[in-house]
Amino acid sequence: MAVGLEEPVSLLAVKGIRLATIEAGIKKNNSVDLVLIELQKGSHCAAVFTKNRFCAAPVILAKKHISQTTPRYLLINSGNANAGTGDQGMRDALHSCQIVAEHAGCMTEEVLPFSTGVIGENLPVNKISNSMANLHKKLSEDNWINAGRGIMTTDTMLKGISRQIQLQGKTITVTGISKGAGMIQPNMATMLSYIATDAAIDKNMLQECLRDAVNESFNSITVDSDTSTNDACVLMATGQAQNKLITQQDEDYRQLHKIISEVSLYLAQAIIRDAEGATKFVSLQVSSAKTLEDARQVAYTVAHSPLVKTALFASDPNWGRILAAVGRAGVEFDINKIKIYLGNVCIVSNGGRDAAYTEEQGQQVMNQQEIDIRIELHTGDQSARIWTSDLSYDYVKINAEYRS
Amino acid sequence: MAVGLEEPVSLLAVKGIRLATIEAGIKKNNSVDLVLIELQKGSHCAAVFTKNRFCAAPVILAKKHISQTTPRYLLINSGNANAGTGDQGMRDALHSCQIVAEHAGCMTEEVLPFSTGVIGENLPVNKISNSMANLHKKLSEDNWINAGRGIMTTDTMLKGISRQIQLQGKTITVTGISKGAGMIQPNMATMLSYIATDAAIDKNMLQECLRDAVNESFNSITVDSDTSTNDACVLMATGQAQNKLITQQDEDYRQLHKIISEVSLYLAQAIIRDAEGATKFVSLQVSSAKTLEDARQVAYTVAHSPLVKTALFASDPNWGRILAAVGRAGVEFDINKIKIYLGNVCIVSNGGRDAAYTEEQGQQVMNQQEIDIRIELHTGDQSARIWTSDLSYDYVKINAEYRS
Repeated sequence: MAVGLEEPVSLLAVKGIRLATIEAGIKKNNSVDLVLIELQKGSHCAAVFTKNRFCAAPVILAKKHISQTTPRYLLINSGNANAGTGDQGMRDALHSCQIVAEHAGCMTEEVLPFSTGVIGENLPVNKISNSMANLHKKLSEDNWINAGRGIMTTDTMLKGISRQIQLQGKTITVTGISKGAGMIQPNMATMLSYIATDAAIDKNMLQECLRDAVNESFNSITVDSDTSTNDACVLMATGQAQNKLITQQDEDYRQLHKIISEVSLYLAQAIIRDAEGATKFVSLQVSSAKTLEDARQVAYTVAHSPLVKTALFASDPNWGRILAAVGRAGVEFDINKIKIYLGNVCIVSNGGRDAAYTEEQGQQVMNQQEIDIRIELHTGDQSARIWTSDLSYDYVKINAEYRS
Repeated sequence: MAVGLEEPVSLLAVKGIRLATIEAGIKKNNSVDLVLIELQKGSHCAAVFTKNRFCAAPVILAKKHISQTTPRYLLINSGNANAGTGDQGMRDALHSCQIVAEHAGCMTEEVLPFSTGVIGENLPVNKISNSMANLHKKLSEDNWINAGRGIMTTDTMLKGISRQIQLQGKTITVTGISKGAGMIQPNMATMLSYIATDAAIDKNMLQECLRDAVNESFNSITVDSDTSTNDACVLMATGQAQNKLITQQDEDYRQLHKIISEVSLYLAQAIIRDAEGATKFVSLQVSSAKTLEDARQVAYTVAHSPLVKTALFASDPNWGRILAAVGRAGVEFDINKIKIYLGNVCIVSNGGRDAAYTEEQGQQVMNQQEIDIRIELHTGDQSARIWTSDLSYDYVKINAEYRS
């Protein structure tokens, strides 16, 4: 199903990070649903979370804990979002952290909880409690693939990637996993993504690196405009690669930043490629806009238009729907100056269909699985790029039949 | 297919309004596609149009003509939107008006053009020209039903209604028709709607009456968030009922205003009941909001959420999706104070599922064809109400197979 996406055969271990997974019985289909990630002492950890006002109990608690101390453990369950669960949800999230702390011999505040799955059902904490001893025993550096599977919900494919660079003779590894397929319009975070590096980098630079990487990746994708209650993206750095500690925006920082951005972008795009029911992977670029906000507004209006999305599904070069979506985006422009391209084919210029455009040209682009739509507003010099999927029968099927 | 909607058996004639319809061959399926409406001399006419920046050529020209003089004729074609057609589109729209003027012996500026259908194809003006003599001959007061059919595109049902009141011993008639089923989030207008009355009312009061009626009806519905390039709503008043001319907000105005609002609301809701693929008719009410804008923002965010819409289609009381949509609407509120109701069942209170809520209660509401969702924000005293439809396989089918 996923568009141009393959599962990673292996993922590189990151020195200082151990992972464990288990079938705790939270998911109904007997699959791995509980993941523990351990950070070696001395690691740093940066995180961004959903802006949804109804953010889940684990999001509230994870934000609190990370503000109090440096995390040593991340506990992630799939199959239950522990969202919309009120006070009981807060107690359950705290209890989960206490269970980890007890087994690991750390403080409760050193544990960050994450949940993904059905909204509005209470978290079965007893299942977490019953599994913890075995889970803790399974911690290993080579468990990234299993962890990637353990966080999946409606995903059809494991999403993960590793990259390496040399920094002054030291090999630096970055490995990341992500999950998400529906309820995707991340806002200052993604669904769930965990990225780790063994690079030595201080806490402030790590947070800056994450913020940058997320803006150009997880915060630039949309499946269905629905921002989840549970979005979180975590970037961990253990320092075990023994490189010189990065404390400022120097060349080392830029190189590390580059591969972390690449990993983030890969993971974000993987979510779109595996979007619920997706048959197309669509890149939307809006350029020469007056403001970045204008550019993003136009891009998201087109990306969210059900009529554009169904035309993409049908491989129908129905450019009138793109034009109509651009026109209703609430952004000022001169319709005689704007240009719209499908792939390299100009479809709109001078306020209407480009004089040279032929339906055959448009059809050729629409027949592809990966489609570029470019919109030039000619009102300034700002631009934005986002990625989205189409709207298919299967999107309706998945969401009319799955309780998410 | 349409939810709780029946076609009108008859529509009342409005003294001073004549209508004609013909198969001009613009639509491909041999059905009525050209409508002419004649207003008796001395009539007034008010209109509101789409705010889409890529508004169609006929919209631009109709706005210009109505600002210059009082309309005598409305020419409406279905099957072709004459949108995204650049300069040629403007020439074609003007030419259409000239053809009417020539046959009717009026000025070109006295003709308002309207088009609905496929975007981006040139209007076949020769077909309009060839049909005009016959069309003009067919003008009759009793043609409302035919006119309602002539403006349909993906509509499965004719939408029309008549109402009568007495104003100081005189019988006043209001009759209206509308069309629209997809690309529906009207903004200061509807898809296409024509409402006529024989009441005597001056031009300013007529425009005010239309603006009020539209805000509470056509501007409060959404199928798919897509504002059309061709939306227009026209209110005509012939004065033939011989009532005392309405020139201010007196009791006569209030009575007339009331039935025009009723007719507008019926026609707007009829569009939602017949929305593409609709199986549910959903009323969304947001109350105790700080501002009207907040209330509408929350209502539209829920109404546009593909996850809420697919849950409605599945009759799944998946209230977590409603809660998630409210949470991402970008509006400030205290999650512990907000309440969400499905029908009369409280589903969310105190930041999570209401303590007394049971799945059976939610299921009972969701099994209905007509569903009320109420959201209390408890941040002020403003409220808004909008209407929407669900997202079904058939919505995807219609829009993946029909070139609109």
